Amino acid sequence: MSHSIQQVNEMKYEEFLQVFGNVVEHCALCAAAIWAHRPFYNVQELHAELCHFIDNLPSIGREGILRLHPDLAGRIAQLGLLTSESKKEQLSAGLDTLTEDERETIMDLNERYKEKFGFPFVICARDNKKHAILTGLKIRIENTSEVEVTTGVEEVKKIMMYRLLDLVKTDN
Amino acid sequence: MSHSIQQVNEMKYEEFLQVFGNVVEHCALCAAAIWAHRPFYNVQELHAELCHFIDNLPSIGREGILRLHPDLAGRIAQLGLLTSESKKEQLSAGLDTLTEDERETIMDLNERYKEKFGFPFVICARDNKKHAILTGLKIRIENTSEVEVTTGVEEVKKIMMYRLLDLVKTDN
Repeated sequence: MSHSIQQVNEMKYEEFLQVFGNVVEHCALCAAAIWAHRPFYNVQELHAELCHFIDNLPSIGREGILRLHPDLAGRIAQLGLLTSESKKEQLSAGLDTLTEDERETIMDLNERYKEKFGFPFVICARDNKKHAILTGLKIRIENTSEVEVTTGVEEVKKIMMYRLLDLVKTDN
Repeated sequence: MSHSIQQVNEMKYEEFLQVFGNVVEHCALCAAAIWAHRPFYNVQELHAELCHFIDNLPSIGREGILRLHPDLAGRIAQLGLLTSESKKEQLSAGLDTLTEDERETIMDLNERYKEKFGFPFVICARDNKKHAILTGLKIRIENTSEVEVTTGVEEVKKIMMYRLLDLVKTDN
């Protein structure tokens, strides 16, 4: 269901959390914090407030946000335990059509990535098809930890924008 | 289930989040962040790391943590939808034995408190019986917002310590 920005601005925090609690995967704190800064002029400002909050977290907080994300095409997906948002995004990337070989490759790379960095590989699945995701994993695993925190968090912000656009009308 | 601090220090972040994800109510980010600072010497150090993370959040983040808490003796409790930790704590305070009058008073005060501050009244229910909670609500609703954020967050830290002590052995 899509809300006008006026409706968003009138929400009590409980309703705001019900609607926006998962725009950052499993991290309702982001929405809970920026509710304090309403009213928002439009969905872009809502997004900007969330980005600003994330950028001002202690650095382990930004790593923490990445750790709240599921592996792409991982066990949680196979068990059908993804959040509805993640499920839709992973489907849009074609991650349900992986061959057995592709799935093994991606799961192996995910494990090596997590072993190296201590957080999972995060990429905006709505912007990338499965081959781009596989290529991204192979390239990004070579980065430094610092670069990967920054890169992962920028992907979180893109994911957040798509999720917001599903929830807030843009024609105010 | 109780874990030794050695077991805690050996956990991958996924297991750490499964075990400690709700030591701050609905705010797995806290545990996800401080995993970066393991190994922990003991449960006190684990608690101190969590406190340090919370204290270093932007101030709207501390308010946000309060907003992730349910009302005491509120609708979520009546609907049986509390987290298992909150349910146990509210029971220990005797909030299941409220008279009809007491329940009405507490729900009315909760609403007025949230209307004034924009976050719910948070108190460590394991440290307070129902009469102390009612008295606390009546007194604290007169405070300034700044005082109540600080007071609420200090209560979050007490709740956190009890929850940690249920999860980590203290006899290393």
